[in-house]
Amino acid sequence: MTQRWKIIVEYEGTHYCGWQMQDIPQPSVQETIEKAIEKFSQQQVRLHVAGRTDSGVHAYGQIAHFDFINKHNMGGYDLCKAINAHLRPHPIALLHAEQVDENFHARYSAKNKLYIYRIVTRSAPLTTDAGRAWHMHRTLDSAAMHEAAQILRGTHDFTTFRASECQAKSPIRDISDIKVIEKPYDDYGGQDIRIYVEGQAFLHHMVRNIAGSLAYVGLGKWSNETLKNALESCDRTQGGPTAPPDGLYLARIDYK
Amino acid sequence: MTQRWKIIVEYEGTHYCGWQMQDIPQPSVQETIEKAIEKFSQQQVRLHVAGRTDSGVHAYGQIAHFDFINKHNMGGYDLCKAINAHLRPHPIALLHAEQVDENFHARYSAKNKLYIYRIVTRSAPLTTDAGRAWHMHRTLDSAAMHEAAQILRGTHDFTTFRASECQAKSPIRDISDIKVIEKPYDDYGGQDIRIYVEGQAFLHHMVRNIAGSLAYVGLGKWSNETLKNALESCDRTQGGPTAPPDGLYLARIDYK
Repeated sequence: MTQRWKIIVEYEGTHYCGWQMQDIPQPSVQETIEKAIEKFSQQQVRLHVAGRTDSGVHAYGQIAHFDFINKHNMGGYDLCKAINAHLRPHPIALLHAEQVDENFHARYSAKNKLYIYRIVTRSAPLTTDAGRAWHMHRTLDSAAMHEAAQILRGTHDFTTFRASECQAKSPIRDISDIKVIEKPYDDYGGQDIRIYVEGQAFLHHMVRNIAGSLAYVGLGKWSNETLKNALESCDRTQGGPTAPPDGLYLARIDYK
Repeated sequence: MTQRWKIIVEYEGTHYCGWQMQDIPQPSVQETIEKAIEKFSQQQVRLHVAGRTDSGVHAYGQIAHFDFINKHNMGGYDLCKAINAHLRPHPIALLHAEQVDENFHARYSAKNKLYIYRIVTRSAPLTTDAGRAWHMHRTLDSAAMHEAAQILRGTHDFTTFRASECQAKSPIRDISDIKVIEKPYDDYGGQDIRIYVEGQAFLHHMVRNIAGSLAYVGLGKWSNETLKNALESCDRTQGGPTAPPDGLYLARIDYK
């Protein structure tokens, strides 16, 4: 009998075309996991994901579900272990697997998502964190970024922060929480800045476009007023630049 | 006129044969930096390093010095920038450069070194931290590791923790500080354990051999008594396994 399984997935997205298959030579995270499941179970499964991520974007807590026949009546721990063994040496790992009700849907049942956007500022290039953060050379005013970010909290038309190729029907989204936290990156004044953005759903490139605009605030290029006007203009050309995928992490997805 | 410069270097050591040139195809960190300096200055320089690191070992605060003719009278900031530009895309970066007295020697003037050994425990393989920590599957008792580590503090004959190929004249070393600190790694019980070891100088593989022995304590395989007996035996075969290079970071070097 077919069972529905929910999995929590972590990945380093640098060398993938994103979650979904694209018309480029790099593999997708999705097909890589589907192949691993097929190798261990001899079943072709289809993964349904909570949040598709773009090329170069990482995840600590991506959620997906799939249906399969659990011939050997495996538990979640063994299932993870078996699939992870077939995922090697890919930087993709299942952190958890559990059987769920057939009404569960990774995407449609999701109530809340947390994205973290990471910016590291320092003069020197990144080494251990290359590809894992947006590297900026100039120091940012993270307190100003946090204050400005509060303008975006709540329900708004986020057209200003929406990619032109975004296919969502409505540009209205609700940011339930947004904060900017700074820690020292090194002993030489480098900053490790993380933007936490929570909401039920996001538009395409929305978090990266918000990060790009908040970086403008941090650099002193934009005032709170500029950000407010940009949001209210509902015009993508009034928004800041799209921050690179390197800094974006899908950190957590909550269900009822 | 020749000037002596001190540089602080950060690197991700995974794809290098170590600091020093070896008879293997991978480049060394040293030659990579020397080539970058030559490209920018048209001068062949020789780097002298504080602590040679093995293949796969990382550094946040490696120190080296070199002599060169500062034709354009550059300051430290511009020198770093110029050399870093020629280091791209290597995961090696100069964090700081300063002119020093000609009596300064990166190795012989060093008063204290801090190494950090990082262990991540969880069932799933590592993704974003692959190559950057020792991945262990079983949970470790980090409080027991910290307590046992105190046996190693102070001046001892560290033959038990010395690689057979170590060329140091004396096996006597002084560990001025050692501690084990645990933080959560993820939401699923994973541990991020760091062993901090400080001293003026270390034997070859000494920190990795200590990390391997403390891991045995953390697993419950070894008691404090076992560790104490191993230390006192002055016999490498009584020591724990050599922990992999992935978890080792040369974090800081202090001078007078």
